[in-house]
Amino acid sequence: MSRSYLAGLFGQGIGPSLSPELHEREGARQDLRYVYRSIELDDAQLAPERLRALLAHAVELGFDGLNITHPVKHVMTPLVDDLSPGAAAIGAINTVVIRDGSTTGHNTDVTGFAAAVRQGLPDADLDDIVLVGAGGAGTAVAHALADLGAGALHVVDTDPHRAERLLATLGPRHAGRGTTHTPDRLPALLSRASGLVNATPMGMAAHPGSPVEASLLHDRLWVADIVYRPLVTALVQSATERGCRVLTGAGMAVNQAADSFELFTGRPASRAAMVADFDELVAGELQPPGRTA
Amino acid sequence: MSRSYLAGLFGQGIGPSLSPELHEREGARQDLRYVYRSIELDDAQLAPERLRALLAHAVELGFDGLNITHPVKHVMTPLVDDLSPGAAAIGAINTVVIRDGSTTGHNTDVTGFAAAVRQGLPDADLDDIVLVGAGGAGTAVAHALADLGAGALHVVDTDPHRAERLLATLGPRHAGRGTTHTPDRLPALLSRASGLVNATPMGMAAHPGSPVEASLLHDRLWVADIVYRPLVTALVQSATERGCRVLTGAGMAVNQAADSFELFTGRPASRAAMVADFDELVAGELQPPGRTA
Repeated sequence: MSRSYLAGLFGQGIGPSLSPELHEREGARQDLRYVYRSIELDDAQLAPERLRALLAHAVELGFDGLNITHPVKHVMTPLVDDLSPGAAAIGAINTVVIRDGSTTGHNTDVTGFAAAVRQGLPDADLDDIVLVGAGGAGTAVAHALADLGAGALHVVDTDPHRAERLLATLGPRHAGRGTTHTPDRLPALLSRASGLVNATPMGMAAHPGSPVEASLLHDRLWVADIVYRPLVTALVQSATERGCRVLTGAGMAVNQAADSFELFTGRPASRAAMVADFDELVAGELQPPGRTA
Repeated sequence: MSRSYLAGLFGQGIGPSLSPELHEREGARQDLRYVYRSIELDDAQLAPERLRALLAHAVELGFDGLNITHPVKHVMTPLVDDLSPGAAAIGAINTVVIRDGSTTGHNTDVTGFAAAVRQGLPDADLDDIVLVGAGGAGTAVAHALADLGAGALHVVDTDPHRAERLLATLGPRHAGRGTTHTPDRLPALLSRASGLVNATPMGMAAHPGSPVEASLLHDRLWVADIVYRPLVTALVQSATERGCRVLTGAGMAVNQAADSFELFTGRPASRAAMVADFDELVAGELQPPGRTA
């Protein structure tokens, strides 16, 4: 008999998430019986004791794993039985693996961004990187860059305390190689940087524009955006025009899903096929309603 | 994007259940993403308040439906939002359909046995039937026979009160056509009967033997057994030898699963293919360990 797999996603505003389709398509491609459920939380369910009960019942009801997204990545962290070293370092989880009734938290935003850089920007110069945005996504990016052996990391945020907190989570392994800045310092930082990552929501449909003026970009810079709706953000557009090597948000989005799939199933994901699925799904969303021909 | 389906089974001792494999194979045959989970309950989970919470979380976690088996068919009945008329009549459910957060209880043991008789014993004479065993399975069989338009129904049980209770659940639509008996009356009852159903566990590996002496069987009788492990029980064996038309336990087992599948998905099940799957799975169980070549 075939083993089947059951996964889910806890979060708010997850109706448009591509995770169910990405996971289920990959499962079908591997001839697995695989179902992935979006579990939209209402406000009352954000309370830790409610989340604890929901997690316990997910275990009882036979889930093999869960993804965890906004706004419960932090509140879920102390509710699992164990944490992977990477998740413990960052203090936030986006993945829970369930085995024999026991739960382990992981963070595939970190491993996913690292995999995306390895895949999409091989041999990128990681010596001097500007990271814009020090929220949850920026923190995951920073840990991924540290894992990749980044040199100097300049964290830019409108809130200096947020940038300081991010550096603090990196701990001793990145001590002395991080600095914090407000956005007015971007011209000076970028003039000598080897890479730039946007980890703010700027560039999304709801947050139009670019976190960095196009005139500051130059062709010695690689540029990564974590925004993937749309795939071609204003930043990606101007970086491409300036001749930069570019990594779109698809890289992190697909690789975090692939990493979770591998944790849930113990089987390698077909990452190239998942990228193709992702492109097709995002392209589908951009079509005006009624124009499906 | 494809819709996916998530179903489960609540019960005790359900490790060997064929339901997950029957449902998932039928889902795969229809190119559905379909996962079916066995949820083994411990004793503490049998309390109604625990079952209520588990059901509520199954709804929240995206289940489309559940099967319910021993020992919670009765205790689950008042926990659903609505009951189908058939489930209300018998007061026990084996299936819960979940739609838009609302739960409806059904009983596909009843519809499944009726479908099995229609399929496996077409044109069977239902005028005078002896039913041995007045527990939960016997009650489902009695309701199915009443739905099929059975005439006289003679309910045989070692406990006369159990037989009386069964008849009481049939209500006015079968009034005056039921009688209750102890097993010593079997020779007289069978001599003029048109059909015989075994709804006791006798014939299972753990309960060897037959509920009816072989010498009482005759070729004017059709014989149905609800035991399906093994498929060929002592009763089925002697009935076949005596020239009776025979319905094995596979009929009810497969048709209750097919009826549940149709309720969960709204799509017709391929019953013939499910029967073939069932036969293969049961045959597989009979192979001695290590003899898989």
